Amino acid sequence: MRIAIKLAKKGEGKVNPNPLVGAVIVKKGEIISKGYHRGYGQLHAERDALNRCIEDPNGATMYVTLEPCCHHGKNPPCTDAIIESGIKKVVVGSNDPNPLVMGRGFEILKEKGIDVVNNFLKDECDELNDVFFHFIKNKTPYVVMKYAMTIDGKIATSSGKSKWITNEKSRYNVHLDRNKYSAIMVGIGTVMKDDPMLDCRIDGGRNPIRIICDSHLRISENSKIVKTAKRNRTIIVTKCRENKKIEILKKKGCEILLDNSIEKKIDLNWLMNALGSMEIDSILLEGGSQLNWSALNSGIVNKVQAYISPKIFAGENSPTPISGAGILEPSESIKLVNVRIRNFDEDFLIEGEMKKCLQE
Amino acid sequence: MRIAIKLAKKGEGKVNPNPLVGAVIVKKGEIISKGYHRGYGQLHAERDALNRCIEDPNGATMYVTLEPCCHHGKNPPCTDAIIESGIKKVVVGSNDPNPLVMGRGFEILKEKGIDVVNNFLKDECDELNDVFFHFIKNKTPYVVMKYAMTIDGKIATSSGKSKWITNEKSRYNVHLDRNKYSAIMVGIGTVMKDDPMLDCRIDGGRNPIRIICDSHLRISENSKIVKTAKRNRTIIVTKCRENKKIEILKKKGCEILLDNSIEKKIDLNWLMNALGSMEIDSILLEGGSQLNWSALNSGIVNKVQAYISPKIFAGENSPTPISGAGILEPSESIKLVNVRIRNFDEDFLIEGEMKKCLQE
Repeated sequence: MRIAIKLAKKGEGKVNPNPLVGAVIVKKGEIISKGYHRGYGQLHAERDALNRCIEDPNGATMYVTLEPCCHHGKNPPCTDAIIESGIKKVVVGSNDPNPLVMGRGFEILKEKGIDVVNNFLKDECDELNDVFFHFIKNKTPYVVMKYAMTIDGKIATSSGKSKWITNEKSRYNVHLDRNKYSAIMVGIGTVMKDDPMLDCRIDGGRNPIRIICDSHLRISENSKIVKTAKRNRTIIVTKCRENKKIEILKKKGCEILLDNSIEKKIDLNWLMNALGSMEIDSILLEGGSQLNWSALNSGIVNKVQAYISPKIFAGENSPTPISGAGILEPSESIKLVNVRIRNFDEDFLIEGEMKKCLQE
Repeated sequence: MRIAIKLAKKGEGKVNPNPLVGAVIVKKGEIISKGYHRGYGQLHAERDALNRCIEDPNGATMYVTLEPCCHHGKNPPCTDAIIESGIKKVVVGSNDPNPLVMGRGFEILKEKGIDVVNNFLKDECDELNDVFFHFIKNKTPYVVMKYAMTIDGKIATSSGKSKWITNEKSRYNVHLDRNKYSAIMVGIGTVMKDDPMLDCRIDGGRNPIRIICDSHLRISENSKIVKTAKRNRTIIVTKCRENKKIEILKKKGCEILLDNSIEKKIDLNWLMNALGSMEIDSILLEGGSQLNWSALNSGIVNKVQAYISPKIFAGENSPTPISGAGILEPSESIKLVNVRIRNFDEDFLIEGEMKKCLQE
């Protein structure tokens, strides 16, 4: 199963909004095939593995990270393929939360006399598909709030400079995540300050869709983002109806999403529904302090990633990761659960999920 | 040697400003004695171990975490005792940086035909005595800056509340450190806001000396600290010469240290020299943001301890661990080295030494 999990990860950035799935077929103690879901619209992991067998799979055992599907989507049901192949036993990690599957896959296999073991290495398998599980249930993107700060909680010096807080290995990991998640979202402040590309700079990676929250449509036509919008899909979210500017931006390749709510700020809950309808299943939020607070306060954040570098900026006026009004009582603080830590040389990455999101 | 290291730690909070030392005597593969330096003025670890032998140490091997002393202090030289005992081999962890010892201990033993192995588990042994090594060289206290913050870098909510950021296990570890280090230092702001006791609340622990930086002598006669100054040694550092208030505080048991410098703020370098002359070898700095910045900026900090809890306070106006002017360029940031991480359930403690202090 651990091999199947590794295989599944090879699909990162390619399968969205489908799940990551890996499958391994074992016969008489030998692996006779390995497969995974290679990209959206391509074969499911089970069929991919069955196609690559170096021996007849009749009588073999299949290890698969996610419950096999039993419905007709872009592919015919995987349960059919498994039954036809003569596979004798199927060991499964995660249950499929897709209302079209949800246990039906298991039943069909059992009806055909196939031995089924489920919940095998469930936690590790579930971890592969936090995005998929969230998206299938909520139809809104899974939002990962990412920031980099010093050991004294600053995201820039008192003069506003932030290049660089973390080391190259940490920044490389951010690019892996830009490859993994469908979109990246920032506020107009970040665009005006840094004029970033918000692309993915790893070999073989794909660029995330760029989402810019820009209430007053202040983005410059000459910003790198607008200039490259024909190459890299770019969505500008605004409350401004200035047609002339909108037309210019559209002509340069930007998509414009207009928020009609009466609130002063962009309604992030509306935005998540709108992006979900566009099949955007996940967002890496690399916003500044203000956007981070708005996102938290709107309840759209699912996971927090805090990169921490063991250096000190200090400063009364140095910005911190999350500003806004904040909470008043320590007992009302927003808690992370399932907290993990990793290190990239001297830097640390602490990540965890939002408590309330586990109750959804 | 690992047993000797464990024994040495039993002296924490009792030996200052002496070093922590443990010793184990082994004869024919059996441990025949264990000893450690139990308290300031008491026997050194070597003599303590020799006194507790369950068998004649003649021909045995002694493992000791620090180079044996060869000078007359509160105790006669340990080298004499080792030679007299008939010990055949001495295995040592750290070299003694005390200019009165510094390798002379090794030479004396070798001259008498005793086998000496040094630098054995040196790093672990050195770690026991970061305070002692610093103090013997500099004659100023070893300063540990400790703070507790949320994962978004806040030490209190926007309404100033900070109880509690970390969990009980983390706070217990702080009390272990209050037992370990000679003194605790805070600014008057902390005293006025929290009216703390700044004591050590662990069984068998001893209270640290309390040092309050209070330029304008604003401390209340009714504060818990002043009211308990006869029981717990309390030093108030001030620039204020108001005799009446000084007399009242003295009568209540406080010691007053008067800073005569022309600077507006207390001169922390002068203060460290003054406290060093009083044989205070170490300080746990539990200051607020301002005092933390002053301490860093004065270059008196040796080690930083950041407790991080996986919760979020957010807030534009929520205080952060270190304020002041701060640095302007990321490349000029103050870097920690030898960074370690521990966890106390869901909380993390990241600690490291100041880079420049390694060059002292």
